[in-house]
Amino acid sequence: MDAKLRIAVIGAGYWGPNLARNFRNSTDWDLVAICDIDQVRAQKLADSVGGVRAVSSLNDLLSSEDVDAVAIATPARSHHGITRAALNAGKHVMVEKPLADTGIRGRDMVRAAAERGLVLMTDHTYCYTPAVLKIRELIAEGALGEILFIDSVRINLGLIQPDVDVFWDLAPHDLSIVDFILPGGLRPLSVSANGADPLGSGKSCIGYLVLPLPNGAIAHVHVNWLSPTKIRQMIVGGTRRTLVWDDLNPQQRLSVYDRGVDLELQALDGAERKAATISYRLGDTWSPALPEREALGAMAVEFAESIREGRPPRTDGEAGLRVLSVLEAASVSLAANGAAVMMSVDRVPVGEF
Amino acid sequence: MDAKLRIAVIGAGYWGPNLARNFRNSTDWDLVAICDIDQVRAQKLADSVGGVRAVSSLNDLLSSEDVDAVAIATPARSHHGITRAALNAGKHVMVEKPLADTGIRGRDMVRAAAERGLVLMTDHTYCYTPAVLKIRELIAEGALGEILFIDSVRINLGLIQPDVDVFWDLAPHDLSIVDFILPGGLRPLSVSANGADPLGSGKSCIGYLVLPLPNGAIAHVHVNWLSPTKIRQMIVGGTRRTLVWDDLNPQQRLSVYDRGVDLELQALDGAERKAATISYRLGDTWSPALPEREALGAMAVEFAESIREGRPPRTDGEAGLRVLSVLEAASVSLAANGAAVMMSVDRVPVGEF
Amino acid sequence: MDAKLRIAVIGAGYWGPNLARNFRNSTDWDLVAICDIDQVRAQKLADSVGGVRAVSSLNDLLSSEDVDAVAIATPARSHHGITRAALNAGKHVMVEKPLADTGIRGRDMVRAAAERGLVLMTDHTYCYTPAVLKIRELIAEGALGEILFIDSVRINLGLIQPDVDVFWDLAPHDLSIVDFILPGGLRPLSVSANGADPLGSGKSCIGYLVLPLPNGAIAHVHVNWLSPTKIRQMIVGGTRRTLVWDDLNPQQRLSVYDRGVDLELQALDGAERKAATISYRLGDTWSPALPEREALGAMAVEFAESIREGRPPRTDGEAGLRVLSVLEAASVSLAANGAAVMMSVDRVPVGEF
Amino acid sequence: MDAKLRIAVIGAGYWGPNLARNFRNSTDWDLVAICDIDQVRAQKLADSVGGVRAVSSLNDLLSSEDVDAVAIATPARSHHGITRAALNAGKHVMVEKPLADTGIRGRDMVRAAAERGLVLMTDHTYCYTPAVLKIRELIAEGALGEILFIDSVRINLGLIQPDVDVFWDLAPHDLSIVDFILPGGLRPLSVSANGADPLGSGKSCIGYLVLPLPNGAIAHVHVNWLSPTKIRQMIVGGTRRTLVWDDLNPQQRLSVYDRGVDLELQALDGAERKAATISYRLGDTWSPALPEREALGAMAVEFAESIREGRPPRTDGEAGLRVLSVLEAASVSLAANGAAVMMSVDRVPVGEF
Repeated sequence: MDAKLRIAVIGAGYWGPNLARNFRNSTDWDLVAICDIDQVRAQKLADSVGGVRAVSSLNDLLSSEDVDAVAIATPARSHHGITRAALNAGKHVMVEKPLADTGIRGRDMVRAAAERGLVLMTDHTYCYTPAVLKIRELIAEGALGEILFIDSVRINLGLIQPDVDVFWDLAPHDLSIVDFILPGGLRPLSVSANGADPLGSGKSCIGYLVLPLPNGAIAHVHVNWLSPTKIRQMIVGGTRRTLVWDDLNPQQRLSVYDRGVDLELQALDGAERKAATISYRLGDTWSPALPEREALGAMAVEFAESIREGRPPRTDGEAGLRVLSVLEAASVSLAANGAAVMMSVDRVPVGEF
Repeated sequence: MDAKLRIAVIGAGYWGPNLARNFRNSTDWDLVAICDIDQVRAQKLADSVGGVRAVSSLNDLLSSEDVDAVAIATPARSHHGITRAALNAGKHVMVEKPLADTGIRGRDMVRAAAERGLVLMTDHTYCYTPAVLKIRELIAEGALGEILFIDSVRINLGLIQPDVDVFWDLAPHDLSIVDFILPGGLRPLSVSANGADPLGSGKSCIGYLVLPLPNGAIAHVHVNWLSPTKIRQMIVGGTRRTLVWDDLNPQQRLSVYDRGVDLELQALDGAERKAATISYRLGDTWSPALPEREALGAMAVEFAESIREGRPPRTDGEAGLRVLSVLEAASVSLAANGAAVMMSVDRVPVGEF
Repeated sequence: MDAKLRIAVIGAGYWGPNLARNFRNSTDWDLVAICDIDQVRAQKLADSVGGVRAVSSLNDLLSSEDVDAVAIATPARSHHGITRAALNAGKHVMVEKPLADTGIRGRDMVRAAAERGLVLMTDHTYCYTPAVLKIRELIAEGALGEILFIDSVRINLGLIQPDVDVFWDLAPHDLSIVDFILPGGLRPLSVSANGADPLGSGKSCIGYLVLPLPNGAIAHVHVNWLSPTKIRQMIVGGTRRTLVWDDLNPQQRLSVYDRGVDLELQALDGAERKAATISYRLGDTWSPALPEREALGAMAVEFAESIREGRPPRTDGEAGLRVLSVLEAASVSLAANGAAVMMSVDRVPVGEF
Repeated sequence: MDAKLRIAVIGAGYWGPNLARNFRNSTDWDLVAICDIDQVRAQKLADSVGGVRAVSSLNDLLSSEDVDAVAIATPARSHHGITRAALNAGKHVMVEKPLADTGIRGRDMVRAAAERGLVLMTDHTYCYTPAVLKIRELIAEGALGEILFIDSVRINLGLIQPDVDVFWDLAPHDLSIVDFILPGGLRPLSVSANGADPLGSGKSCIGYLVLPLPNGAIAHVHVNWLSPTKIRQMIVGGTRRTLVWDDLNPQQRLSVYDRGVDLELQALDGAERKAATISYRLGDTWSPALPEREALGAMAVEFAESIREGRPPRTDGEAGLRVLSVLEAASVSLAANGAAVMMSVDRVPVGEF
């Protein structure tokens, strides 16, 4: 086995402790330091994971020889600055979602990592759950056929965030998952967003996203902080089979239905005349067994392996950028009353810059 | 008790037999005739309900002295013509949804009935189910407070209709229900519709409707012919309580949650400065018992009573018109890539005519 | 195709109309008469199925040349007398469950039919539902392996019957199903029954049945008239897989779990010393698609085919007798405070006669 | 506030760490020592909770002045010896369930504590969950009326224990809960147990317990290690309402049904003649909100308060003894083929000693 890679966690707030604990328990990593602008908070987290170094100066941390990589769990607006500094110091970077607070900054981060040959990974944790890994695998091997539609619902009585609306709070989960399971990533033709703020909180508490995909397919996301019932459900419809992921049903999270509509278009004697034969399949349902594994552990492995193998991680900076672009376009559409914001081929909301 | 009213059913296709059977069993009505352009089909239905008159000529039917009212169950494009003829002959009219195939024709029907002092009722059957009647009652008595949002999902593996898309096939149910339970009826500020036809069937098989309501509230409808799982769920969120209607759970169709977010806006020393205090309620859940009653029977009673009392029925022509206006606007929005179609005060899609 | 067989339904009470309607619609049968001691009731049922003969005299009916078989839907105490008369008249017989009111009479009916070479079928309707047919098929082809246990729950707020307790009212369903799906039929080593009558109604309203099966397996039945929730669930555990039938979940009635415990007994160097290796399987779940078919229609087909092919029907008199024997033994056990009533090899409660 | 009480945890195996963590976090307790015959194991647990004393000698521990109470989490066969020693040293005792390995020893422990005026508490953890506390409260205030029946199901694919059968492994949960919620505790008239060991593991893997209660009521427990699906459900039926506790449904753990059967017994002109009028209630369902609280924390509070107030804790030694008596009787019944074992007034299986 290779020597362990050495990592520092930057940010000791809400998410940092989860990262620290998982890198601490990893056989791929040595956790060597915790960095937070608040030295006391850094020290407290450092103590709780068995006494690693606590640092309050980013410069000191990045000039250390014993740090191969950093995991950044600070507010989104600081991602760009910290990431650029870390890349300049030759460190590999994993950064919490969203990748950055603007697309321009996100693209700059991706470019900078590429130029230096360093790994830039986005912390799309959900993608490393056994359920999402299995969905990706099923789609990749063709079990669902061509993807026709994806409908994702993520609603519950949630905390109204002070700084972001429900799209930026919840939809990154759905978008990063859709990006992860679609073979070419999430590349919508346009983005339409409609929201509501019926309580007058100053931001959308209910949100709906429409994402037309190539070939007539569509993705839709419903996020909601005001629902009394909790629903975490994604339906992925394909030409061969359709999959339902109900994340709140631990006894049967994934169901694969051999049910659907077959539509056969026939060219009759002239090329112009077509007839459609519609038929319905009502076959068996199948629910694959899923291992019990913590997602963050699998993510730590992927980060280490991508560095060792000199390849992009499964949720690389590009993936983070695709999610970010959709969020940005959603904000534009929201301000424009739900009008569709067209996405250019490299996923920049057209006309935004 | 008053003498029974006398009714004829026009149209002996898919829905006519249900109407005929319910009027036949009603203590308010005498079913006197079945009318269908196809005399054989009319006769067959007439026989099956105990041998009433079978007629193939609409003129003959409408010139009969022994007919007080007609129930029309023919294709939508014929609703206007038949209704006008019936009203001209002095008959009260109940017409299957949608009220008409265009808003212009629908408005003409409503006007004609009003001028003649005759009842024009739209057959919004779902509104007469015990669950929907209870929801209307709960909202009317203030149990939910102000309505903040309505989210309706109606998806299953459905028959792809030859002539209409999924909006016109399924959404009339959701729209008529929302119209029925909202105290002032369904009066959205605008309508946005997005659809997808991933199989290339020539029409939307998946549809999403966004309906901003006054005071920042919102209604959303998801209809889908391609889902392997069947979902019939409506969430109605209010300032006091939130209600979930799961029509596929006969053991607990309605759940009223005393859960929600309270946001108190406070005017501080200056009128312009406001601070919001957010608090969360996590109270009990309550599921009202519902009687077992057939909706069509209750609808037959309402039709009779509205005639006797000289008042509009609960689902009158105006209600049918409101639903029809939204469907028309949805088609416009769909063609415009989901752009919001503004609704004028009298619910006509602005600029459409 | 063979000529149709001709049948009369005896008994025009609760169940008779269902039988009449299904034989009427069958392509295998001509329904020729309805017989009830109450001529008016017989006539009314006869009219409702299109005008067959109504008879009030059993003798007249059985002496008719145009009757090949009878279906008996009268109270249990009259089954023996009517069946004997019908067999004596050379008619094939289908009789509603339970086969008879006592085991002695039931055995006499089975013997009489066998001596005359006539078909005697018990109306175990549930066995002809698509779900139960599929369970039988899965067990027969070895998909579950050896059966280890069967746990059946049939509870809801039910009508307290005036004449029978909850065992005789509800358990025949469970017992006939277990008899149908087990390759050799239901042959328990003993029967223990415990009941409760907490309301003081004079009979058990809650009942539990324990049925030890050969090879250490066990079946258990819970029937209950006092439960506010309705449960219809049967778990069938086998050495290879375990099946759960939830009859109230139309979207997934049957689930086959490739989960279980494997216990390997190893004989070590001496024959006496054994070591057990326990391992756990946590494999996929599979839910077979089921056709939508009415059970009574399938039963009518089976009755006709068994007559034509001169073979016992799937739910023959012997099956009815096995169920009846368990019910009788349960009553004995109940009176003996739940003591196990041993069953002899031919399923007679030992010592009862 | 009173000074904190000082406690030591005895036993650092499976359950001890949970106890240690909760006493450590309690504002009522000072955790002062961990005692285990294996010094290394004791030290490891002591370290993990912040560095309390680790002891391998029971005598040393019990002679310490700074220990007010001990919590025992050792194998059942050692409960009696350790408890007696602790009581002799003047310490209050909490002991893991089951109270002891035999009823004789359990009774001796209860007597010894009473003689010394010390608290003896049984660790019936489940009783301190918000759901069970609420059930107890609802029954105590009469919301359910008289209890008619209790049906408890606790099944899943479970670990086959090397030393105990499924009754002793799982049923203590059900029995301690029933004991806790019934106003007078669990006092069955008799105990019948039936089990099965279809895999030949040498002990029952499937178990059914019948517990007739006074006044015609009944309790029943189904425990099972071989079920592929997990069910944790208890139905408590009363004369006024019925409650269903589904512990695997976090969104609605408790449902109180205002549904049931009312049976009015009427004495007619002679005292002997009675007539019953049966009626059915089909009222609303209500689901009380439950706080999120850890059961072990609430148990630590109860232990402290019972010591301070000089009163028996809610789950005292007597409660542990009642559960133990039923388990012992179940083993006797099991060996006797399910025959009912009568319980004497002080709950000793009659004739067992």
